[in-house]
Amino acid sequence: MILTPRPLPSGLLVALLPVATWFVSRPLIEPIPTVPALYSSFGFSIFAFLATIYLVPRLGPTFVKAGLQGKDLLKTYKNPIPESQGLICASIYILLLILFIPFAFSAPLLQHAGTKKTHEGISVEEFPHYQLSVYLSSLLSLLIATMLGFLDDVFDIRWRHKLPIPIIASIPLLIVYYAERGNTHVVVPLPLRFLFGTLVNLGPLYYVYMSLLSTFATNSINILAGINGSEVSQALIIALSVILNDLLYLPWPVDIRMPLHLLGDKAEVEIGGVWSAGMAYGSRELVERHLFSLYFMLPLVAVCIGFLYHNWYPARAFPGDTLCYVTGMAFAVVGIQAHFSKTLLLFFIPQIFNFLLSCPQLFGLVPCPRHRVPRFDPETNLLYPSKTLFEREPSKLSALILRLFSSFRLTELTIHPNTDNILEATNLTILNFFLLRLGPMNEKRLVQVLMCSQVAGSVCAFVVRYGLAGLVYDGDRR
Amino acid sequence: MILTPRPLPSGLLVALLPVATWFVSRPLIEPIPTVPALYSSFGFSIFAFLATIYLVPRLGPTFVKAGLQGKDLLKTYKNPIPESQGLICASIYILLLILFIPFAFSAPLLQHAGTKKTHEGISVEEFPHYQLSVYLSSLLSLLIATMLGFLDDVFDIRWRHKLPIPIIASIPLLIVYYAERGNTHVVVPLPLRFLFGTLVNLGPLYYVYMSLLSTFATNSINILAGINGSEVSQALIIALSVILNDLLYLPWPVDIRMPLHLLGDKAEVEIGGVWSAGMAYGSRELVERHLFSLYFMLPLVAVCIGFLYHNWYPARAFPGDTLCYVTGMAFAVVGIQAHFSKTLLLFFIPQIFNFLLSCPQLFGLVPCPRHRVPRFDPETNLLYPSKTLFEREPSKLSALILRLFSSFRLTELTIHPNTDNILEATNLTILNFFLLRLGPMNEKRLVQVLMCSQVAGSVCAFVVRYGLAGLVYDGDRR
Repeated sequence: MILTPRPLPSGLLVALLPVATWFVSRPLIEPIPTVPALYSSFGFSIFAFLATIYLVPRLGPTFVKAGLQGKDLLKTYKNPIPESQGLICASIYILLLILFIPFAFSAPLLQHAGTKKTHEGISVEEFPHYQLSVYLSSLLSLLIATMLGFLDDVFDIRWRHKLPIPIIASIPLLIVYYAERGNTHVVVPLPLRFLFGTLVNLGPLYYVYMSLLSTFATNSINILAGINGSEVSQALIIALSVILNDLLYLPWPVDIRMPLHLLGDKAEVEIGGVWSAGMAYGSRELVERHLFSLYFMLPLVAVCIGFLYHNWYPARAFPGDTLCYVTGMAFAVVGIQAHFSKTLLLFFIPQIFNFLLSCPQLFGLVPCPRHRVPRFDPETNLLYPSKTLFEREPSKLSALILRLFSSFRLTELTIHPNTDNILEATNLTILNFFLLRLGPMNEKRLVQVLMCSQVAGSVCAFVVRYGLAGLVYDGDRR
Repeated sequence: MILTPRPLPSGLLVALLPVATWFVSRPLIEPIPTVPALYSSFGFSIFAFLATIYLVPRLGPTFVKAGLQGKDLLKTYKNPIPESQGLICASIYILLLILFIPFAFSAPLLQHAGTKKTHEGISVEEFPHYQLSVYLSSLLSLLIATMLGFLDDVFDIRWRHKLPIPIIASIPLLIVYYAERGNTHVVVPLPLRFLFGTLVNLGPLYYVYMSLLSTFATNSINILAGINGSEVSQALIIALSVILNDLLYLPWPVDIRMPLHLLGDKAEVEIGGVWSAGMAYGSRELVERHLFSLYFMLPLVAVCIGFLYHNWYPARAFPGDTLCYVTGMAFAVVGIQAHFSKTLLLFFIPQIFNFLLSCPQLFGLVPCPRHRVPRFDPETNLLYPSKTLFEREPSKLSALILRLFSSFRLTELTIHPNTDNILEATNLTILNFFLLRLGPMNEKRLVQVLMCSQVAGSVCAFVVRYGLAGLVYDGDRR
């Protein structure tokens, strides 16, 4: 079978190029908007989308020639599919983030803006040296993550060895955070305040927390992989959720009101107005943090959409570990630098579920085959839960855990009819769990189910963050 | 033949580890020295040396297994030698530069120093945000250079296509330079001042100059390659020359006097004294710039020495393009950020000679074979100049250039006895030029000759910079 690259809509480039150019140059056109750099960021994101959607099929053959290719395990055909295409996405993403620097931080541009009347709340008169250092250290972390992801693809590092790799990538982030004497205080939840007070200084523990956050964000996407589109669609939905959350903190030109009482809060919360700046309630710091987050998330969404086009079932390109590393690190970066790591973790509900479910296999209690992807049946073109075989009788602890999981229908066990020993268990992943619950389905359907669960997780996250969080935190959130 | 890794001196690690630790932690020990971070930088460099010398043989087999290996063209044996080992050097180099950040820029450390009496001339009371941004953008450029070098090794980009690659790596440097509204003025040489005045603002041309500098520094090392130890020994000697130049600008505890009149200057120049700070004549800015340069050059020298140990004839490891890219970019970084690009170029005399000599082949006037390394004769174990064949009669321009080069004994031509046509010419590289002038020699000898020429070039550079430059510039150099 010949697998040609997915055809590209011919008018796309012609239609989007002028739009992108207009957005990028918007800060130079009068009247200057309240948040000029956000327009440029949006324009650069369109460029990122175009570059990704055009370059991925163009560079695929080069990757195949260099040996960076793999067979699609869940297909009948054996065509080589280019691997590590996340490298293309990551390169475009990082390069555009670098080119964006003068728009967010340029002294000449700021001076230009400074001659006009002061914009309420946002415009920065003095050069934002501190923010530039933070931005650059974030880029360094992203670049190291890309590099390590690609090295992982080339050298095929065993996965138990590569769990701590993201910690290396988070070093620039942590070092600059330390050098700039970053805040290591956290707000204590209301029920614990009688013990610790309102604020507690975690000190070195805060750095441990930050490095663990990047490890989790990276690896949790990496282990929820194996079917076409799974990695990139997770990243896409998480990034969109982060953007939605950021937008709540921006100053909108019109007052809007969100009926938060529906989510369990007592009063309506007013969003918007130039000074009220959405949920930021006039805090310039909060607005700047969420702008920072948007600068990283908008182009990430763009490259994810561009890449998903080629990675969608049946995939013409594989992301490789590179994509998981760079997207995971991007989430860690915004969570850490914009100080909403708890909210961020809420967007990882399916990943947390998948990680907890996987623990017995990750920590060696249950045998872990090299691939835990669902089993493909070429006859019916459907996916079935894949199984792990017990060559020896499982330990008492393993058997206990498996029977517990089985009672919650998280796994399906094959029991020896006479000895009552466990012979087989379905692999402990969220994908196999979906197949157990919803029955066999084809690959495209399974990735759609995964995407729905991710969206549902984000909806839950917003309810928890803006509804229930009021029960354990007061308004003084950081 | 079995080619085992070169054995390592057993006591090295035990002896150097405590020394390195002492130097790194020196800024925390009373009395705090005048330039505390320089001690840490030296300590980190020892760590870099140890890491390189131990990791290169350890990781070699992994590279061979991943297909990153090559045969040594100038040997009789066919053992696979690990390629792209510059990646190991670059990773160690960049990682240690990142870990060094708190020692050079840490707010807590500076505060600690601030409680003591103010150190004369050097200590910085307020947080050096600007320097940190510059440092981080330099790291980004180095990391991109490493990445692109490694991609070049994996995808084997054709060399005419890869000439402009270093420009991409210099983007973070240029962008941050622009965002921080960096100085684009240059001092005009005395004879031209009646035309342009003392200072002239190059504006955008300055950025073109900076990107060309990184392109030149990177590619000029890359094309002077092909024999064991050639790339890394060039980088080593250039880095040592830069360090020597930097040391002239540091504040020394004792007054020393350099007999500069021997080099053509009129008066002795006083070096040293706390405030006079060597050639910096009390300018804190000059001291800081050259400290910045030292922070990048000391660990570079360390990884070069460590790697040279394994790359020395007969080589156990090849540098790949990665090493040339990262060292070239490191030189461009210090030349640009510490503002001594003209002095830096003087240290590239052999590379400039090699580049000019190569031009007819680089620009297609003379056929350019894939490898231009000298020809190896297995019988005598000697190297002879390699030749390029003219399948067609050379154009008039090519013939003219070749005959001109030949008259200066830069190349040797084989002329058809009857038609007087050029049939063959020795390849236009400095290595073939050495073999032409000094006769056939073995590979080890040739690399020694190359190193001597590099040292001689640096001696010339110092004479020109501190002797002759007074003729075209006054003391007001920047």
